[in-house]
Amino acid sequence: MALGTGYAQQNCSIARALEIVGERWTMLVLRDCFYGVRRFSDLLGHLDISRAVLTERLASLTDAGLLERRSAGGHPEYLLTAAGIAFWPTLYSLSRWGERYAGDGGRTRTFSHAGCGGEVDDLGQCPVCGTTPGPADLIVTLVEGSSGHRRSDPVSLALRRPHRLLQPVTPVAG
Amino acid sequence: MALGTGYAQQNCSIARALEIVGERWTMLVLRDCFYGVRRFSDLLGHLDISRAVLTERLASLTDAGLLERRSAGGHPEYLLTAAGIAFWPTLYSLSRWGERYAGDGGRTRTFSHAGCGGEVDDLGQCPVCGTTPGPADLIVTLVEGSSGHRRSDPVSLALRRPHRLLQPVTPVAG
Repeated sequence: MALGTGYAQQNCSIARALEIVGERWTMLVLRDCFYGVRRFSDLLGHLDISRAVLTERLASLTDAGLLERRSAGGHPEYLLTAAGIAFWPTLYSLSRWGERYAGDGGRTRTFSHAGCGGEVDDLGQCPVCGTTPGPADLIVTLVEGSSGHRRSDPVSLALRRPHRLLQPVTPVAG
Repeated sequence: MALGTGYAQQNCSIARALEIVGERWTMLVLRDCFYGVRRFSDLLGHLDISRAVLTERLASLTDAGLLERRSAGGHPEYLLTAAGIAFWPTLYSLSRWGERYAGDGGRTRTFSHAGCGGEVDDLGQCPVCGTTPGPADLIVTLVEGSSGHRRSDPVSLALRRPHRLLQPVTPVAG
């Protein structure tokens, strides 16, 4: 293998993880799946990527066992598997780091525990009940006035409302 | 901006984070910095990437404020800044996910709390004292018989011994 083209010689779990999730757009596809975006056309409209790139990323994630492709009412849908759902802590941690160090420092979204309403901390722990809720028990809320309000595609409009992760999102006509 | 070339329209802290750390090899450069690899030649030998890619990634990380370039004994060294060190939880979480879902399921490395010896859990918390040690208080130990023993470059040989994160590593002649 030529220098710089693969991580195979790294013998490291970070390298192996990046072989699956390290391509451009892959983590944002996963993010959308956590937000409940399941259909190809909705992912396409929300991510602003080419059909070819989205097709390739969905195929890679399905092959790697992070997504499952199902047919629902004649439309294919992509759902996170257990391996995909287990990626949540990494994605959440990346999001928190990004808010602190890659933006203006302000919160864009908050995540609260559906069970008791507590806003989870940097480790994803609920300060009210002390548990670490999985994504299915988290409600994402866009912070008022944050940059997340700039987009007006149908998925972004739907995601302006507090939304439970993993629950299918219904796009809103603009 | 053309479709698929940038994340600027995503208005999302994950996208902003990936603009900084999402290029191929960037997270592995950061991993090595946590392992105490500081010199260009040591990074080059341990990562198996081209000089051009490594040069570009170090410049990007320095520009973005995650690394600081210092001169030490006539050699430039790259050290993590506070923003770089704050990336540890994300990298650790990615590593744990990779061990579970991108390899054979076995541990490659363990991380223990230098203060009390507890092996930190998936959230990075020490089960002995209940704190969440920062990387400067963690000792990384390669698991016997794991794939991490396959490499024999001078940095890999040095990292076969338990090693405190962020402390400079001294490469071992093979």
